Amino acid sequence: MMTVTPIGTIHTPFTDPKGMPIQPTGGAGVKGRVTLFEQFQPGLRDLEGFSHLILLYWFHQSEGFELEVVPFMDTQSRGLFATRAPKRPNPIGLSIVELVAVEGGVLHIQNIDVLDQTPLLDIKPYVPAFDQPQAACSGWLQAAEENVVKTQADDRFAP
Amino acid sequence: MMTVTPIGTIHTPFTDPKGMPIQPTGGAGVKGRVTLFEQFQPGLRDLEGFSHLILLYWFHQSEGFELEVVPFMDTQSRGLFATRAPKRPNPIGLSIVELVAVEGGVLHIQNIDVLDQTPLLDIKPYVPAFDQPQAACSGWLQAAEENVVKTQADDRFAP
Repeated sequence: MMTVTPIGTIHTPFTDPKGMPIQPTGGAGVKGRVTLFEQFQPGLRDLEGFSHLILLYWFHQSEGFELEVVPFMDTQSRGLFATRAPKRPNPIGLSIVELVAVEGGVLHIQNIDVLDQTPLLDIKPYVPAFDQPQAACSGWLQAAEENVVKTQADDRFAP
Repeated sequence: MMTVTPIGTIHTPFTDPKGMPIQPTGGAGVKGRVTLFEQFQPGLRDLEGFSHLILLYWFHQSEGFELEVVPFMDTQSRGLFATRAPKRPNPIGLSIVELVAVEGGVLHIQNIDVLDQTPLLDIKPYVPAFDQPQAACSGWLQAAEENVVKTQADDRFAP
């Protein structure tokens, strides 16, 4: 049995899934905080030198999944694994956010697109040499990318 | 209780943690396969248009964790969350790999750095607009980045 346990909480201004940005780029400038449970705080050392973090978290408002979904940024159904929809077999979310400051067990972050009170599973440093492949292209999303900033969530993935 | 379940398996040439590359950039050109369990295969539709994928997986050879570690690319100890070390409170790994071809329930991938038989938890499309922040800097790893390609794992994170 593979079980995961929250190591902290993500705090954001978004208390309702409806109307929130659908990705960090859509959440540009939105400020939030990550609070780490006390026993994990020593693991934050050396993080302040990184400009960006990868947050892994649990889609706590998400239940069940379907293998074909109509994503926010399209009008036709797509294979689930070709989307970032929150209802997944393992409802683990990933966001790359800007690290503004580290203050004890609190990380001040920016460009955050998740629901308030989201359970945090992991923090990894964002490293361009590992995480920034050159000349990446993005399938059906390519045409839709320009609309990310404008697109907001509706209730199609509500519990 | 938050439990996760494998949706497939990652196949690579790396059967021994010792001597394997430490990140996809170090695994440049290394070919592997992702096989999805049959019930999840309909979710792969539309994936073939993406050049890169984000794989989330379970560090199945990893047990326990320490909040300060000496990472492969350094000689001094660092806070765990400022590293990509596999022994983590939630042992979930993340690799960005190149998608070469989709063949039924099999994804042919390249630039893979994980152990053979690694349990797959999720596949997400890599989308530059979401996942490629500009002007990212990478703390203590910045100086060490050039060495990634040369650095191989030893047994310090062995079970």
